[in-house]
Amino acid sequence: MAKKTRRPRVGITMGDPAGIGPEIILKALSQAGIYRQAIPVVIGDAAILSRAQGFVGATLGIRRIESAEEAAGRFGEVEVLDLKNVDPERCPPGVLSPEAGRAAFEYVSKAIDLAKIGELDAVVTAPLNKEAMQLGGYPFAGHTEILAERTGSRNYSLMLVAGGLRVLHVSNHVSLREACDRVKKERVLQVTRLAHQVGSAWNLPNPRIAVAGLNPHAGEQGIFGREEREEIVPAVEAARAEGINAGGPFPPDTLFYRASRGEFDLVVAMYHDQGHIPVKLQGFDRGVNVTVGLPIIRTSVDHGTAFDIAGKGIASPRSLLEAIRLAIRMAGRRTSQR
Amino acid sequence: MAKKTRRPRVGITMGDPAGIGPEIILKALSQAGIYRQAIPVVIGDAAILSRAQGFVGATLGIRRIESAEEAAGRFGEVEVLDLKNVDPERCPPGVLSPEAGRAAFEYVSKAIDLAKIGELDAVVTAPLNKEAMQLGGYPFAGHTEILAERTGSRNYSLMLVAGGLRVLHVSNHVSLREACDRVKKERVLQVTRLAHQVGSAWNLPNPRIAVAGLNPHAGEQGIFGREEREEIVPAVEAARAEGINAGGPFPPDTLFYRASRGEFDLVVAMYHDQGHIPVKLQGFDRGVNVTVGLPIIRTSVDHGTAFDIAGKGIASPRSLLEAIRLAIRMAGRRTSQR
Repeated sequence: MAKKTRRPRVGITMGDPAGIGPEIILKALSQAGIYRQAIPVVIGDAAILSRAQGFVGATLGIRRIESAEEAAGRFGEVEVLDLKNVDPERCPPGVLSPEAGRAAFEYVSKAIDLAKIGELDAVVTAPLNKEAMQLGGYPFAGHTEILAERTGSRNYSLMLVAGGLRVLHVSNHVSLREACDRVKKERVLQVTRLAHQVGSAWNLPNPRIAVAGLNPHAGEQGIFGREEREEIVPAVEAARAEGINAGGPFPPDTLFYRASRGEFDLVVAMYHDQGHIPVKLQGFDRGVNVTVGLPIIRTSVDHGTAFDIAGKGIASPRSLLEAIRLAIRMAGRRTSQR
Repeated sequence: MAKKTRRPRVGITMGDPAGIGPEIILKALSQAGIYRQAIPVVIGDAAILSRAQGFVGATLGIRRIESAEEAAGRFGEVEVLDLKNVDPERCPPGVLSPEAGRAAFEYVSKAIDLAKIGELDAVVTAPLNKEAMQLGGYPFAGHTEILAERTGSRNYSLMLVAGGLRVLHVSNHVSLREACDRVKKERVLQVTRLAHQVGSAWNLPNPRIAVAGLNPHAGEQGIFGREEREEIVPAVEAARAEGINAGGPFPPDTLFYRASRGEFDLVVAMYHDQGHIPVKLQGFDRGVNVTVGLPIIRTSVDHGTAFDIAGKGIASPRSLLEAIRLAIRMAGRRTSQR
């Protein structure tokens, strides 16, 4: 199963049945190039996918399969591991519902199980609606939290990729005050190590990692905050002592410009918006979200369910395509290393 | 003096004599277009400007004047109010010195005095070096602090302008923790009012103002922080009650993308890097810095003294030109309203 030349099997979770997930999956799988590099397996609901064909005018066939390993990966036929867990009548496009939220959770859950036992080489997630999922009985903050819990992971980080920027985050969905509290040497070092490891996905064996400061001007010699001196500098020094090519802390306001011009391969951001603002400004519909530090490979679109345009067939598959391509690249590295 | 058609007299402070200020001023004043719209007056040192002519290969004449009002504004002749306060021998390009720092402070100080009495309609500042200025005996954090103190201003805000982004800041050079503390209803309202007023510089009588959240996702209904509910929402409501076209708080990560696409005219950012990261990413060498809320008009380049390239004649005047143009526009609005 771990032959060097085989195409990786990439599971694509359908996301909320009422969102744009089904549509962008069909659009993405209309690209023959994907099939040359991977065997895509949709984890979702065949009835919902069939409905979405009408929205996007797709002429692809839809083939129900019983297991991921059954997938043949022939272009022109979307293979779906059909969980048969929603009634399309009860999940019209653009309407938030507990039923759709529960179904979206089940796709992710199934995909994680299959990735854990090696039946999928990577998981790519289409958007779910957090509120719907919570109404459906699963009180997670989002995909990342599901993945962390279901794989028993603690040392993980959210990475955003768009344009020339690849940014890992020391913290994510917490208040800015709590984000300040979480800037601790051990955590910064951990995320810097993850950045070093993930560099291999881009064939960067010793990537140039820039660690951002927390405060304006990276604290301006301690005048605008002490986290740089007390936590970040020691973390960067420890990373360098391990042979990691890390530098910083750098003033945040110019760092992302420098990274976007190619001066660094990866950036370690200290909080959610420090990384999200530049990545979203640079590549709004091209962004990919990766959870780094899990035992499985997982990439995701960088947008939500877009209920306002669901069912209209106009949603762009660009971010999903980028997410699939990155998953393939990461899975390729892993299988070739086995 | 307040005739509608006269060209505004724009003072340009020379900045640190050892930095790139003298060079970029000569490059900027090589553009005839500036003279059609304004009478530029350099506040600096004629000997240093003469030296810089050699660096940039400028063929402009240099004319010493005794008062700003003496300036004729003829293209081809740089008019300088010569403070004769540095010895070029003691201030070689690229070398930090107390003498240069003190001189740079004196240019700013003189320009403020002239603007206060109406002999200058606007002040544009070339970069000074904070450390040199402090060694020179003036312990200010930067231009903004000098301007605030010398004009007795308390309700001011730093605005950054580049590309399609115009961003005012609730706080500036303070730690991120202190920036969180400074997100208070009164201050957010004050900066929103300044945004409303400054909109007129772009002929936007009722500008669309977006107020950013402080926390990720603007607090996600209070889950990731309470400043939005407790401080920012009340400020936006108060601004709207005053007739200001303000909205928010918006999730910071997508707001700057939206603003860059023209959805808003001005953004109120909650802290330094929230605004600086996107502006610098979008327009690195085109950025202009404006201090809003002073009794005088002041714009500035958005870069430093660049000691590493000073004296080489390669520094770009682009940010300075943008700063001069914006000063002209703001001064034009003011004089036509008299």
